[in-house]
This record gives sequence, C-alpha cells and structure tokens, in this order.
Amino acid sequence: MNNVYNFAAGPAQLPEAVLRRAQDELSDNRRRGISVLEMSHDSREFSTVIKSAEASLRELMNIPQNYKVLFLQGGATTQFAAIPLNLLSERRTADYVITGQSSRNAYLQAKKYGDIAIAASSAGASPAFSTVPETTRADFRPDADYVHICYNNTVYGTKFNYVPDTGNIPLVANMSSSILSEPVDVTKFALIYASAQKNIAPAGMTVVIVRDDLIGNARPETPFMLDYKLHADSRSMYNTPPVYQIYMAKLMFDWILSVGGLDEMKRRNERKASLLYDYLDSQHYYTAPVDKKCRSMTNVIFITGDAKLDTKFAKEADRAGLKNLKGHSSVGGMRASLYNSMTEQGVAALVDFMKHFAEDNPKLGA
Amino acid sequence: MNNVYNFAAGPAQLPEAVLRRAQDELSDNRRRGISVLEMSHDSREFSTVIKSAEASLRELMNIPQNYKVLFLQGGATTQFAAIPLNLLSERRTADYVITGQSSRNAYLQAKKYGDIAIAASSAGASPAFSTVPETTRADFRPDADYVHICYNNTVYGTKFNYVPDTGNIPLVANMSSSILSEPVDVTKFALIYASAQKNIAPAGMTVVIVRDDLIGNARPETPFMLDYKLHADSRSMYNTPPVYQIYMAKLMFDWILSVGGLDEMKRRNERKASLLYDYLDSQHYYTAPVDKKCRSMTNVIFITGDAKLDTKFAKEADRAGLKNLKGHSSVGGMRASLYNSMTEQGVAALVDFMKHFAEDNPKLGA
Repeated sequence: MNNVYNFAAGPAQLPEAVLRRAQDELSDNRRRGISVLEMSHDSREFSTVIKSAEASLRELMNIPQNYKVLFLQGGATTQFAAIPLNLLSERRTADYVITGQSSRNAYLQAKKYGDIAIAASSAGASPAFSTVPETTRADFRPDADYVHICYNNTVYGTKFNYVPDTGNIPLVANMSSSILSEPVDVTKFALIYASAQKNIAPAGMTVVIVRDDLIGNARPETPFMLDYKLHADSRSMYNTPPVYQIYMAKLMFDWILSVGGLDEMKRRNERKASLLYDYLDSQHYYTAPVDKKCRSMTNVIFITGDAKLDTKFAKEADRAGLKNLKGHSSVGGMRASLYNSMTEQGVAALVDFMKHFAEDNPKLGA
Repeated sequence: MNNVYNFAAGPAQLPEAVLRRAQDELSDNRRRGISVLEMSHDSREFSTVIKSAEASLRELMNIPQNYKVLFLQGGATTQFAAIPLNLLSERRTADYVITGQSSRNAYLQAKKYGDIAIAASSAGASPAFSTVPETTRADFRPDADYVHICYNNTVYGTKFNYVPDTGNIPLVANMSSSILSEPVDVTKFALIYASAQKNIAPAGMTVVIVRDDLIGNARPETPFMLDYKLHADSRSMYNTPPVYQIYMAKLMFDWILSVGGLDEMKRRNERKASLLYDYLDSQHYYTAPVDKKCRSMTNVIFITGDAKLDTKFAKEADRAGLKNLKGHSSVGGMRASLYNSMTEQGVAALVDFMKHFAEDNPKLGA
C-alpha cells in the first residue's frame, strides 16, 4: 500500500489486491520453473486461465449463452474497423452517434467501408461534447446494419444516461471506460467492446462480447485477424493471444467477484463520484462543465476557468501524490478517472487537496 | 534460478536475468506508487522506455536511419494482412516462398488483396518442408511489388541459409523465431517483422522494421491500425501500445547488449545448436529430419521414428524438468527451441536425458 493515487484515464492503476496477487504469483511460479510471462498459450495452465477468465466475466456481466466473449489484441481502435467489416451487410449502411473523439474516429474508420451516417452528435453543445444527445428510434435509418455509440466518453467525461432504442437494429457500444463499473443489460446490445487498460488489465488486450448472429458475415476484404468468426471458432486462440493480459484480466474479474460483483462496484463508484461531484456543486472555484444528467461516473472533468491555475493544480497535485489529473490535451482542465481501482480514500484526498488549493490560490477579481 | 528448462517454441522462456529485473522493478515501482503494469503510455517514464527500446534495438541490429522501427499489436498474423495492404502497388502483385505453415498462411492472407504467386516451395520435399528451396532472381516476377519469405520456420525447424537475391524487388521477411539470435544485414531486407513471444518479450507485441519508402502507400481498404504511416508518424503511439511488452522488450535488448550483442548471441546459439545436432548426428536412435544445410539454430526437430516412443519421450522429459519438447501437432516428434534464453546447461541436460531415454527404451527389432 502507498499514498500515491493514480487518476490516469488509462492505462490506469490496478487494484492493490490484484497487483499484489500478480506479483506473488510471478515470484511463486518463477520458483516452480515457468512464469506466467513465459506461459505457452497452448498449455493446460493457460487453457484453465482463459476459460476461467471467460467464465468469470460471463458471471459478472450476466452474459447470455448466445453471445461470444473474445479476448483480442489491437485496442478499441482495431474494433473501429472490425465492426463495419464484420457487421455491414450488402447494403453497407450504419449510423453513428458522435459524442467525442473516440466515436468520431470510429465513424471516420467505418466510412472507408460503407454509407455511414451521423445519426446524432453533441459536437455543437457548449462546451463541445459536454452532453450526450437524446435519440429516438426515428433518428436511425430503418435499414442501418447497426448503430454505434461510445457509452462513456473518457475525454469529455460524459456517459449515456439511457440505452438508445434502436428497435431491431443491432446496437454496438464502445464501453472501454465504463465496463465493469456497474451492471449493464447485455441483451440490449448486439456487441460490446472495451480495451483493457482502463478497468480490466494492463494495456494490450480488448474484450469483445458479440451476439452469435453477427458472427460469420465478414466482408471479403476483412483481414483474418479482424474476422470475429476465426476468433470465435478458435476461442480467442486463432493466433498467440496476449497471455499476460488475459491472466491479469482473470485476476481482476476474480477480485471483483470476491468483493461483491458489479452491484458492489456500482455502489462504490457512485459513492466516489458523489464525493467529488457534490463538492464541485457546493462551491464556485471549480466548474464541472458536463451536463449534469450525462455526467460520467468514471471520468470526472473540472476546470478552474484559468488555464494557468489548471496547470499549477495538476503540477502541485502530482507532488502531493495525486497523479495524472491533467485533462486531455484537447480539453484542458483536470480529469479524475475513478475506475474500480480508485479507492474512496483517494477521492477524499483529492477533494481535500482541491479545497486547500482553492484557499491558497485565490482568483484575481474573485 | 531453477532446474526447469522450457523448450517451448513460443511463448517461450525469458532469460533469468530479464525476469529477475522485471520482478524487482515491479516491486520497486509499486512501492513508489505506479507500477509498470499501470504506466500511462503518455507519461514521461514510458516515453523514456520506448525510446530506449528503439535505440537499443537499432544498436543491436545495426538498423539504418532510413528504416522505421514500429512496436505494434496483433502478432505476425496481423502483419500477414498489413504487408500486402501497405506494399502492394496498383499492380497488386507479390511473390511468396512457401516453407511451412506460417508462410502459407501469409500467402493465403495476401491472396485476398492481389495477384499473389508462389515463387518457390518446399511442400514437395520429403518429409514435407524439411528443406528451404534455393531461389535465383529468375524465380521472381520482375514486376512483383515484393517477395515474402519466412526466414526461420518454427514448426519444421528450417532456416534460410542464404538471403534470396530479389534484385530491386523489396524483400520482406518474417523473422519471428530467429530475430536477435544472430546478426543479419538489415539492408538486404525492405521489411523485417517478428512477433515478440519467441526471442523478445511476452506475447502481445510485434516488431516491424520497415524501410521509409514502403511507408505511406497503404491501399484504400486498409484499416487505420494496419497502416504503417499512422504508426510511424506517431512513433508507435497511434493508439495505446502494449506498454508492458515494450518495457520487457527494452529489458531484453539491454540484456543482450550487456552480454555482448548479437555476435555473442550467435556464438552461444551455435554452441547450443551444435551440442544437440552433433549428438543427433552421432547416433541412430533419433533422427533429425531436416536437410543439414537448412537446419534451424533456434528450433531443432528430432524423432524416434515411433510415435508412441515420441509421446513417452515428451512425457518423461517433462517430469525431468525438460518442458514443452512435444513437436508441433502437424509434425509430431520432438522440437527443442533454443532461443537466447536457453542456457548451454539446458541443452546439455536435454542431451543427457536423450541418451538415458535411448538406453532405457530400446526399439523393437533394433
């Protein structure tokens, strides 16, 4: 245990219990001859690890049997291409909701492969992307092959406060920064994907949860490594998978199960987010620029309104052991990422620091 | 240190010195607050790691400045698609030399994107793929956009004993199982790629060394994540890279430099391979089925000629601490992978075991 709290948006900190177990097992199995860093993906040991990781994730998220769970490489960015390449039919139409950079990049990538429309966007909000557009079924083209959303926006600190009603159109969601932070009804989505480095494991792995009927229809130009069918048929072993990340994911899933599952994660995350948002709402030194009804529970944005003070804040917070609070370069200000690994003590320490910083740095004219 | 020797073809064992340093640094930086498993790719710390990894690899392999070094995800299999997607011109022609499964898979993937020819193959050898075809410039189409080879075949235990003369045609080589085992003249290749899990780092990273003039010409259908230009322009940070694997690769490169570089690796690897091949050539119980002039230094194949004895061998060797000697399922027999991490003691222990096994298990009729 230490007094450093890492608020990075990802790669993010890991729970102390998970890190300790990883370290202990690394020492232990090194003594026995083959460490997990050297484990063959073809071994009985790893077969147990990957099956257990999948079983634990299915239990945690209550994933129905008609969904496949894939552990892949290449980050969410690779999925930006895999999704249209696997899901577009001969019509090649899909609708995207734009709520920030990630969904815009997903949209730009998909445009290579079909007739891709922006069904809704919060680019015009003030400040840009500070809310999530409300959508109804009428916003989506009835012949769209799928609708794509980014469920929680890491950069702008917003989150969908509803699941879009797309009727029979498959709904695809990038959940990189919200997965495992609370229960979601998987059946409302046709495909959920998430890069590991925020709430699952070290960077280098992507989880894809995909309904069976969307598998097996890849476009002819699809690289083998982006074809869901090849991965599903080989249980994520079409080529050598990122063994260590899958092992770490298993440790993470088991840890979450051991402390009470996603209901407990939600309770903890709501408590942490409230601690920070309640403070933000109680004073005028800092501003939380995001539409209250779309506030992210995992990525909390705040600004002083003075770029120089923001810079000073991040620098002094870092010296005080509150790391990586600088906002994304495209937004500025501060961002505190409160994934499952962040403790309530960490958030309390942040709020405490914020109070002192505000006292010590009065604004001119205030 | 332990008495277990892991002869796996990959994911493979790591040098004891590299593992120990990884473990020490994990404990140490966890104590200081942020472990390398949690390190942000955007941090100053990681910027130092990735720059140092690249600099060390450039020094080790003597990589000229007109080549980019990329640290990517997705394994060699992703490169099977990235190579044609980036290197095919409007002509869309390329020539492949087939020396086993990996090069065949690379060829099948490339066929999606152009007029791909088999310039030479050792499929017809007896046993299949037990040699590497000799090629001359006349074997390659003068208008081919590139020629692709697999420099060392992990499954069949063969290695090119020459660099094909392709004239002005860019030569592309998969070096997954031979990279860093000995010096190569990088200038003879236009592109070298290698997955990490054999001789570089834990599974989940791929090194691509590519000449500048081959960057920036990706086919229109290329997914962003397979476009070399995007990765080169962002110095392998187009999206979140596999931070831990890049860190481990840096430790590996530094370790190789510290013990004498690739000349020393070659000396060690030749000594280890000779120990095993000399024994194989000195007796009649085991057979080394590979053409002598194309023997791999890193993957040594041998058989007893009796499938039941082979199975017994692998099982008893495992109990004796000689792990993962079972040959690839498509070949059978035994395979001993002697990457940089394998010590001479390990090979001596294997030869010793082989002698005892032969004595204890006389063949019927022998």
